Amino acid sequence: MKVHNYSAGPCILPNEVFQQASKAVLEYENTGLSILEMSHRSKEMVAMADNAVALVKEVLGVPEGYSVLFLQGGASMQFYMSALNFLSSNGKAGYIDTGVWSSKAIIEAKRLGDIEVLASSKDKNYNYIPKGYNVPAGLDFLHYTTNNTIYGTEFFHTPKTDAVLIADMSSDIFSRPINVADYGLIYAGAQKNLGPAGVTLVIVKDELLGKSGRDIPSMLDYSVHVKGESMFNTPPVYSIYVSMLTLEWLKKNGGIPWMDNLNQQKADLLYSEIDRNTKFLGTAEKEDRSRMNVTFVLQDDSKSDVFSKMLADANISGLKGHRSVGGFRASMYNALPLESVQVLVDVMKEFERTNG
Amino acid sequence: MKVHNYSAGPCILPNEVFQQASKAVLEYENTGLSILEMSHRSKEMVAMADNAVALVKEVLGVPEGYSVLFLQGGASMQFYMSALNFLSSNGKAGYIDTGVWSSKAIIEAKRLGDIEVLASSKDKNYNYIPKGYNVPAGLDFLHYTTNNTIYGTEFFHTPKTDAVLIADMSSDIFSRPINVADYGLIYAGAQKNLGPAGVTLVIVKDELLGKSGRDIPSMLDYSVHVKGESMFNTPPVYSIYVSMLTLEWLKKNGGIPWMDNLNQQKADLLYSEIDRNTKFLGTAEKEDRSRMNVTFVLQDDSKSDVFSKMLADANISGLKGHRSVGGFRASMYNALPLESVQVLVDVMKEFERTNG
Repeated sequence: MKVHNYSAGPCILPNEVFQQASKAVLEYENTGLSILEMSHRSKEMVAMADNAVALVKEVLGVPEGYSVLFLQGGASMQFYMSALNFLSSNGKAGYIDTGVWSSKAIIEAKRLGDIEVLASSKDKNYNYIPKGYNVPAGLDFLHYTTNNTIYGTEFFHTPKTDAVLIADMSSDIFSRPINVADYGLIYAGAQKNLGPAGVTLVIVKDELLGKSGRDIPSMLDYSVHVKGESMFNTPPVYSIYVSMLTLEWLKKNGGIPWMDNLNQQKADLLYSEIDRNTKFLGTAEKEDRSRMNVTFVLQDDSKSDVFSKMLADANISGLKGHRSVGGFRASMYNALPLESVQVLVDVMKEFERTNG
Repeated sequence: MKVHNYSAGPCILPNEVFQQASKAVLEYENTGLSILEMSHRSKEMVAMADNAVALVKEVLGVPEGYSVLFLQGGASMQFYMSALNFLSSNGKAGYIDTGVWSSKAIIEAKRLGDIEVLASSKDKNYNYIPKGYNVPAGLDFLHYTTNNTIYGTEFFHTPKTDAVLIADMSSDIFSRPINVADYGLIYAGAQKNLGPAGVTLVIVKDELLGKSGRDIPSMLDYSVHVKGESMFNTPPVYSIYVSMLTLEWLKKNGGIPWMDNLNQQKADLLYSEIDRNTKFLGTAEKEDRSRMNVTFVLQDDSKSDVFSKMLADANISGLKGHRSVGGFRASMYNALPLESVQVLVDVMKEFERTNG
């Protein structure tokens, strides 16, 4: 029986990706070798990695002058690495605080210099996206988190600033159109819309590199990875491969416009049920509701076990909310089919009917 | 037809590991989910990661007071991270330089303080292991690389020092017995004897942590990962899983004593042929010859294409030497069967016979 996988990450990927990824572990394209035992510098793996980079560029519309890297360490490593490369020794940077991930980025950046939190939604447990905040002149960069997995909020505007814009897009990249040219640096842990855990996508504007005036360790220096074409050291080959397969799936089906439309349909379907159903309540401000992570609670929390049992019976997994928000969280990443959302909505209707 | 995979890394792993690793991508243990779409915090993946840690401890005989971590970034990240955690602000560390990897470790450590190269074999293109060097008192630590993949040399003694001993064991860990208690820190990129690329094994003595007096970024702080049990952030789940399978294979077959014996047989078989055969010459000093990477050249280099053709015909792959040494390199990691070494030896004999 099919599992409807609402895991917040690592999360669902397309079934056809799993099929091909499984085959490659047995044998990669008639080489007689498993992909797991192939040198990253073999012609096959170099071509595979090049293809992954080309697909990112094509699908996202990455303009000239940007490099696409596949690194390790996740967004958590990028919190420090981004500041290390972009914050000059006596410079200042601005951060928008929209939750745990922004806060962690701020902690790491503060090790390196003057960090100003320009806006925060902490006052309401991060259930909205700050707007109308003031961005001072003279910042080295402005950093924000485009989607906030725990609280179910998402930026639907791009912050206005003359400074270099840096975005952690871990949980909504490839889900909608973005204008890469607006950014100096985009980073994203792969394990939502791109691939399995273990690889981090970085898109960086080349001309901004090498200007911080700092001594940067090789592995934390974007310039080193740009020069090495992500093979300065042994890259996480298999995670890149699965990401490449996911990008092929995305491109084949219509790319970002297709995905954007499908994600809107999924979000409309679930949010309209939350708003209609007398038994549920959404936790995020309506205008800031994430299309990736839908957070909601029961009107009557004592019925939590009943609803959870119904979810389990319908083979819906991963819907438990983060402990800091409680309730439920439906993570609807790119590969989650509309049908799975319909199954969830049906359970919610049934819950309303049987718990009147 | 079977490929005899002599790749220097990523490299051959046991065939049964590939079989099981392939299945888990389709479905992990009757969960209805691919391992690639499972949360690292699911009970199944937490149990899997715990098992991987327990297997490392059992197979290597890790004593109490040490933590086993699975991190990202490879040995290249450890070059910096090890010094950042173990070199105090005004301290000094000693390094033994046995090749490219040692040299890279030295470069990263020098960013942080006073580094003394205690011995080097650079004078002979790293074809031997330095001995009889002096280790000054008062070092924060002594760092060395146990096996040198490019040059085919390996330490068969443990450097004597009162300082904390740090070893990069990327290319020979799990190939022979080690006394973990001799070390303050052991690190190893997985992609030789442990698993696929994308995960780094760290074994660290807990009581040595938190003493450098430095402000350490979270992701570069061993203490943070010890506290988070390698799940401070999303770990490279699949690479850990494949490593766990490889450790199960190792344990089931007799553990380190079995492996040690088999590696000796493989090394004896190939080195004795190199020494017997009039057409070949080993490049490393005999007493320092690596059991993992066997480097040799043709007596008559003009026959290189002929020999390479014979290797290809025998389905032997990955034998090309590193560009800095030339010639040939047979990487015989744990999972390479004795039979593959016999096939190589047979080709060498045939080459001698037909190119007299």
